[in-house]
Amino acid sequence: MAGEGVKLLGYWASPFALRVRSALKLKGIEYEYQEEDLGNKSPLLLQGNPVYKKVPVLLHKGKSISESLVILEYIDEVWKHNPLLPEDPYERARSRFWAKFVDEKCVPALVGVITKVGEELEKSAREAREHLKTLESGLDGKRCFGGTKIGFADVAIAWIAYWVRMEQEAFKIQLIDQQNMPLLAAWIDYVLEDPVMKEFMPPYDKLVKHTRDLREKLTAVVSN
Amino acid sequence: MAGEGVKLLGYWASPFALRVRSALKLKGIEYEYQEEDLGNKSPLLLQGNPVYKKVPVLLHKGKSISESLVILEYIDEVWKHNPLLPEDPYERARSRFWAKFVDEKCVPALVGVITKVGEELEKSAREAREHLKTLESGLDGKRCFGGTKIGFADVAIAWIAYWVRMEQEAFKIQLIDQQNMPLLAAWIDYVLEDPVMKEFMPPYDKLVKHTRDLREKLTAVVSN
Repeated sequence: MAGEGVKLLGYWASPFALRVRSALKLKGIEYEYQEEDLGNKSPLLLQGNPVYKKVPVLLHKGKSISESLVILEYIDEVWKHNPLLPEDPYERARSRFWAKFVDEKCVPALVGVITKVGEELEKSAREAREHLKTLESGLDGKRCFGGTKIGFADVAIAWIAYWVRMEQEAFKIQLIDQQNMPLLAAWIDYVLEDPVMKEFMPPYDKLVKHTRDLREKLTAVVSN
Repeated sequence: MAGEGVKLLGYWASPFALRVRSALKLKGIEYEYQEEDLGNKSPLLLQGNPVYKKVPVLLHKGKSISESLVILEYIDEVWKHNPLLPEDPYERARSRFWAKFVDEKCVPALVGVITKVGEELEKSAREAREHLKTLESGLDGKRCFGGTKIGFADVAIAWIAYWVRMEQEAFKIQLIDQQNMPLLAAWIDYVLEDPVMKEFMPPYDKLVKHTRDLREKLTAVVSN
């Protein structure tokens, strides 16, 4: 499907850019992808997202849209086929609630696991486990947040599946407990096997190295 | 208009409950309002929002919806007359972007002005001024965020107008500068004169006392 000059500014290790790439793929929208150098951001990025100066930024019809969840809503409204959000207003509210929950609760905890040490690291890991357990309740007994097929909340949350596994292995820390979170563990398997969802996950070894480097840099003050 | 058994759980001083009350009023939806005692939350609140246990919670058709921005979207989708969000997807994205900006940037800074002391207070006030200046850019030269009439973003942001004035007066601190933010200052006057927006603003003196009491309680450890 013609994307009417759609362009996406992203970064390979950004879970937020990943959301937008998956959504565009699910809709079958053609677009130009521009990888950003976060140390030397392009004028397009700085002009397209003057408030946060962050990826992702979607450029379409001479306008720029930023904030990944806002972009997902935009994509779903402009290209109405293969809807990401369910039809029922209550189910739409549920999808938005869980996408927001991940950004507000899971992101800080999972970032904490990467950037903190000692007791603070333990605290972040504990919080991550608690939030993941809460997130599981959002599945409401179903295979995925979209019910029977990948939807808005799955697209928004899929990166969690990849990052949780990566953080567990890279930092030898347990975040998900198969016995305690069986539904979420099954969802993780499900989204990571989905061809669209897995297409945009960053190369695993590169992400591990990137995250370990980030951790070393950010914890240098504490550990030196 | 019949509200089909709509009920709202709120709290008089909650800017987030205020959003929902204004939205229901703009739509002309009849509803039952239940004031919560936040020290002794009702079973309806605890069951209706088990994740955050916070107001507002909207109850409708046996379902509960929480998170004020999610509730606003729900209201706009269930009762389609007098739409809060504009029709154009790009303008809808802009409305969502600024509502989200306020929650992510302005809320922590304005809470900081209430709860912090000394240098930390100065820092919060400086951040609040910067974020309010950025927020002004969202008006894009227009009278309100909805363009020519009160819309989704105005409903979401209106409380800022009231709280900024209140914090300035209660704590003798400048947050908004008429000369530096003329458009935002004009918007503040505009929303505070709007009959629907002002209807649900908490009684001023009661809010000042409530906020001063909160400040005393929260800063007691520091100032004793």
